[in-house]
Amino acid sequence: MKPADAKPPHMDHDTFRSLGHQAIDWIADYWQRLAERPVAPPVEPGSIRAQLPTAPPECGEDFPVLLSDLERIVLPGLLHWQHPRFFGYFPANASGPAVLAELLSAGLGIQGMNWNTSPACTEIEQQMLDWFVHLLGLPEHLRGGGVIQDTASSALLVALLTALHQASAGRTRDHGTGECGYRVYLTAETHSAARKAAVITGLGLRAMCEVATDADGAMDAVDLERHLRADRAAGLTPLMVVATRGTTSHLSFDPLEDIGPVCRRHGVWLHVDAAYAGVAAVCDELRWVNDGVRYADSYCTNPHKWLLTNFDCDLLWVAHPEVLVSALSVLPEYLRNSASESGRVTDYRHWQVPLGRRFRALKLWSVLHWYGAEGLRAHIRTGVRHAQLFADLVGADDRFTLVTPPALGLVTFRQTGTDEENRNLLQAINTEGTTFLTHSEKNGTFFLRFAAGGTLTEDHHVREAWRAVQNAIPRAQHLAGGSADALAE
Amino acid sequence: MKPADAKPPHMDHDTFRSLGHQAIDWIADYWQRLAERPVAPPVEPGSIRAQLPTAPPECGEDFPVLLSDLERIVLPGLLHWQHPRFFGYFPANASGPAVLAELLSAGLGIQGMNWNTSPACTEIEQQMLDWFVHLLGLPEHLRGGGVIQDTASSALLVALLTALHQASAGRTRDHGTGECGYRVYLTAETHSAARKAAVITGLGLRAMCEVATDADGAMDAVDLERHLRADRAAGLTPLMVVATRGTTSHLSFDPLEDIGPVCRRHGVWLHVDAAYAGVAAVCDELRWVNDGVRYADSYCTNPHKWLLTNFDCDLLWVAHPEVLVSALSVLPEYLRNSASESGRVTDYRHWQVPLGRRFRALKLWSVLHWYGAEGLRAHIRTGVRHAQLFADLVGADDRFTLVTPPALGLVTFRQTGTDEENRNLLQAINTEGTTFLTHSEKNGTFFLRFAAGGTLTEDHHVREAWRAVQNAIPRAQHLAGGSADALAE
Repeated sequence: MKPADAKPPHMDHDTFRSLGHQAIDWIADYWQRLAERPVAPPVEPGSIRAQLPTAPPECGEDFPVLLSDLERIVLPGLLHWQHPRFFGYFPANASGPAVLAELLSAGLGIQGMNWNTSPACTEIEQQMLDWFVHLLGLPEHLRGGGVIQDTASSALLVALLTALHQASAGRTRDHGTGECGYRVYLTAETHSAARKAAVITGLGLRAMCEVATDADGAMDAVDLERHLRADRAAGLTPLMVVATRGTTSHLSFDPLEDIGPVCRRHGVWLHVDAAYAGVAAVCDELRWVNDGVRYADSYCTNPHKWLLTNFDCDLLWVAHPEVLVSALSVLPEYLRNSASESGRVTDYRHWQVPLGRRFRALKLWSVLHWYGAEGLRAHIRTGVRHAQLFADLVGADDRFTLVTPPALGLVTFRQTGTDEENRNLLQAINTEGTTFLTHSEKNGTFFLRFAAGGTLTEDHHVREAWRAVQNAIPRAQHLAGGSADALAE
Repeated sequence: MKPADAKPPHMDHDTFRSLGHQAIDWIADYWQRLAERPVAPPVEPGSIRAQLPTAPPECGEDFPVLLSDLERIVLPGLLHWQHPRFFGYFPANASGPAVLAELLSAGLGIQGMNWNTSPACTEIEQQMLDWFVHLLGLPEHLRGGGVIQDTASSALLVALLTALHQASAGRTRDHGTGECGYRVYLTAETHSAARKAAVITGLGLRAMCEVATDADGAMDAVDLERHLRADRAAGLTPLMVVATRGTTSHLSFDPLEDIGPVCRRHGVWLHVDAAYAGVAAVCDELRWVNDGVRYADSYCTNPHKWLLTNFDCDLLWVAHPEVLVSALSVLPEYLRNSASESGRVTDYRHWQVPLGRRFRALKLWSVLHWYGAEGLRAHIRTGVRHAQLFADLVGADDRFTLVTPPALGLVTFRQTGTDEENRNLLQAINTEGTTFLTHSEKNGTFFLRFAAGGTLTEDHHVREAWRAVQNAIPRAQHLAGGSADALAE
């Protein structure tokens, strides 16, 4: 057989069935025994790569070999985000129905860039986003303006581009952004994505104006208005206020009820980033997280954090999607089609930076379908309860103090003592492996963060994590001056 | 039980096993019977959404209900990209090993934003990208500079931001892009992503300079140099040339051997977009697709098109990743860690627009592992052979002409007659359902595109597609003046 006629060794359907069942079982085994693993195994930089051959394989190998490589090389090199005692950053929780939908989406292998490249992909996404308007009690002016983005960073970028297009009456699209003196308002607590978006859109960091906050880190609407007036007087053009409902560091909530009217008065776009906290509004008693969103020109929240939908799945709504489309659409001949030209369909490629798009709405649908709204509420309430439980344990130990009152799934705390002692404590906790926490700082003071919300987490895992914190104290004292472990801090 | 204590109805591990096996079998069944379905079923805008309830479900339902909704609502509303007789756009081929790796990645549910948030995710990605330098015969200066992006659009955006950072010696990061008169060079055949990137980065479309092409649509290096000189003389700043190896419309190849030296002489960044064609270089006899890439400052190609790795998976290399990192890094306290500060690790979040990232390297690894380099070559050669087979069939029918010589997996052709007759022919082909083709235009003339490369495609599917084209001719004649079907054109 000449090489040109060699048949590619595609996996036949029956082999796919049997290996697929193995892969499913492998995941179930992984989840089932995850609690036995250290959450953050020690890893030396370069040590994972060193276990792989330097050159790619010439010939194929059986899939089970890959599974055993995963076991041997990969698992000891992961920070296990699905571990029931993972409490770092914010959760990025997966769930059975989400993982199965990701699988189905990969198997369907369709492209959702245009409506006509798979109508169901677009229409189910539209329906899911409208369902979430209902589920989260979002204002009606956002209905019909929803789209899935990969992350809140991209959502913010897209919102900023839309604001620029609107403020410039379309001029920036042709003429660029640099000469107009646009200003974007945020606080020290705003996610780094806002500064990154300023760099990406060519506004540059000089366009960012940092507004003062109150003692909790929430934006001061009076200071915001002062800046807006001063900038306008200086010949600059206020463009967008990035307000956050639930900041990353310690869940500050910018007061939209005060900020919103200021934005209206000054004709400034209000983007609301509720990446972590927004989904909590599925529960009536937590609907306050979205208070004031009626003023938002754009709003985003991430089911891929706390709502059981594995990464990536950020939900973005804009009040005027036609401006977004006008800002980002570029139409080559090979993507022209009569459906788009009829004006009766939505082509989501104009709503985002990339061209292609996966069928991510399937994950949302599957999660909603399996859990129902009631199941999602039960999950959020469990996270809140776990945070309260952990905060109670912290509060009962007089070596520790809470830095902020527990809110939603987050507890911020520190040991009485110096920042260095707290850094050492965090390192001692994370190197031991029972649990994994992260850190931040407030007013320059270092603290530890405990973020509940894992799918596999039960009450006893929270208690075990707390015991691990307490047990780390003596070990932390030995670390003073020592070198930090790469993964642990 | 108080609502606050209600247990969330997570899918238990044994249920996940059994439903997971069902989902795997569902995909195998879908693939197995795909040839029996119309490639592009007729869909009326809004008809998919109309089949879903207006409000989200309060209570959860069994997973098999979702599978039957998929069957009933979704499958009739998809353009089936994995269908063995799908020959539209470029392929976006999935494969067994890629789909299983996507599943495993979802099940692991880790975050690869920093090295320390899962070292294996970063290190395996680095190794895969270096393996691809070897597999594609890429120049050594790109080794170590590779990263997975979602799409070639994002790759181009990131490259442009890096070029801006370099050209401005870091000034644009703070001061924006608008005042410097930067210019980006492309052709009429360059992917729309280049214009979109100009809009996103705040350069604006006025920054784009369209260079002349030869009769095949390839960039004219002499005209490029003329523009560079003229722009420099006019006080503008040449920034980047976007060259394409294999354009979307009809696979023009911009002559890098001529363009590269021009870029060097003028100190202009050369970005090479080989989204579709680049991966063909796994075959020695097709390595010419990357001729001249030794001049590239950045280069990208998409395994998610023709290389059996389901979307999304674009590979981007930059010659100087430290400039990229410097262009895009923004560091909040809560992401600080000693590994990053040691300088011994790579944090891929600085290499991209979003913060979070999936474990996409697993897909690449799994595909390479299963197929081996030899298997990938066999797949590419099969696509080339299918294109040649189709071109031979076109060539043997004197009612048709080839628009360009068949190249790689693409055949461009048209029926003798008017553009409208050819549009009607395409519509008649696609509404019938046996096959699905798309279109483009060259020098203003409409033509049909046949893009081979599907995982399930065998020789007889190519012949069947050709018979469907021939059979559509009489039906097309009845369409003259009729309204086009939404999905078909």
